[in-house]
Amino acid sequence: MPATTLPPLTLVLGGARSGKSTHAERLLTALPAPWAYVATAEAWDAEMRQRIDVHQARRGSGWISYETPLDLAGVLSGDAAGSPCLVDCLTLWVSNLMHARRDIAQEADVLIEALSKRTAPCIMVSNEVGLGIVPDNALARQFRDEAGRLNQRIAAVADRVLFVAAGLPMNLKG
Amino acid sequence: MPATTLPPLTLVLGGARSGKSTHAERLLTALPAPWAYVATAEAWDAEMRQRIDVHQARRGSGWISYETPLDLAGVLSGDAAGSPCLVDCLTLWVSNLMHARRDIAQEADVLIEALSKRTAPCIMVSNEVGLGIVPDNALARQFRDEAGRLNQRIAAVADRVLFVAAGLPMNLKG
Amino acid sequence: MPATTLPPLTLVLGGARSGKSTHAERLLTALPAPWAYVATAEAWDAEMRQRIDVHQARRGSGWISYETPLDLAGVLSGDAAGSPCLVDCLTLWVSNLMHARRDIAQEADVLIEALSKRTAPCIMVSNEVGLGIVPDNALARQFRDEAGRLNQRIAAVADRVLFVAAGLPMNLKG
Repeated sequence: MPATTLPPLTLVLGGARSGKSTHAERLLTALPAPWAYVATAEAWDAEMRQRIDVHQARRGSGWISYETPLDLAGVLSGDAAGSPCLVDCLTLWVSNLMHARRDIAQEADVLIEALSKRTAPCIMVSNEVGLGIVPDNALARQFRDEAGRLNQRIAAVADRVLFVAAGLPMNLKG
Repeated sequence: MPATTLPPLTLVLGGARSGKSTHAERLLTALPAPWAYVATAEAWDAEMRQRIDVHQARRGSGWISYETPLDLAGVLSGDAAGSPCLVDCLTLWVSNLMHARRDIAQEADVLIEALSKRTAPCIMVSNEVGLGIVPDNALARQFRDEAGRLNQRIAAVADRVLFVAAGLPMNLKG
Repeated sequence: MPATTLPPLTLVLGGARSGKSTHAERLLTALPAPWAYVATAEAWDAEMRQRIDVHQARRGSGWISYETPLDLAGVLSGDAAGSPCLVDCLTLWVSNLMHARRDIAQEADVLIEALSKRTAPCIMVSNEVGLGIVPDNALARQFRDEAGRLNQRIAAVADRVLFVAAGLPMNLKG
């Protein structure tokens, strides 16, 4: 797709190891560099630090990386406001917010407000986690509900929504 | 979609918190009221009663509610026979039948027979539960198999089948 | 679809009890018999033996059956090289390879090389297992990752990729 057709907000949904992040990177890098990579993962220990560094090295030059486990809106409307941007991923953000005992509906309001003010394109990657058996664990059920609700809210404001399976996108919207 | 185009039987599949029920309600309420809401959930206790009441209040007026944990065919060919109807949901019905030690294949025969005699449109909501890791638990595996088989049988007789993710429908049939 | 249009390699993805195997059989048997059925399941005991026999009886005549828990490439480029072929399923093959402590990326290289040399059509069935909650169990997470990676690799070389839900195919590629 020509660079000029990437809309303001794209949501890329998919399962674990579905190729959703790679697909999102390919869409974004069709635009001219530099690109912002906004990671919601946090380096808690040396192993995690190393995994994040490996990912950065794989992406190569042209990327500016941000790590923001909680304040996604701040980065998207602050340092990364002017750049085409990849957020990877919303599901981990929900998990981080739950651990920090934040109100997720309220955080989603703030995020959607920040997204509405951007002009540079943004691609958000998110997991679909509701297509298995109901988890035994109450916290896992709550997480699944929160992640599903956030996906619905972002999809509602997104210009384009894709569902990726085995590396291949299906068009849900836009 | 214009009201006159809603076919006799629509199946709406999706994950937990995928927006499938909301999408189904929107399709049905494009037809003139009253609409039948056929819930397979049962109020076992005060908390469950309250949750069901909250759902009813949210749907607003124009709806006639039925609660039928087991006898879906009876309601669909009885009290709700003449009304456009939303069944929410088939997956919970399978779970209820398993608890009641009913023969699910046989119950599905009776349900499909009842559906074939209706003339008012019916939308059935169901969960897709087979896209995660194989459950450790034998009962969960059996439930997953029964739910999957029922989805296939209803899809085979449905005029239209939709798969909803993040609130957005994909067309599988019709 | 007319027999002559079945491409060299088709991947049929889907959940448990999604009807993916039945759909794959229907596609293959549109071609003239005999057809090769390449099972990755193994008869460990009498119960498993009986289940496999029941499946064979259901498929009926015209099929030549192979059981190959590990050496898929050998069968596809050996005894079954000249026949239209159904492989059921890749996900169980990944599980078998993990139990045998094989290097899955390397085994996938060998499989893809063998597929590239076939001229008779091949349909491979595989489970999508990454759309539920993250498993607690580390081995289950590793399995999910390996299965997802293999699906991506096979999808990349396949001529056609289908995703089956409730017995109904969605076209992902080709």
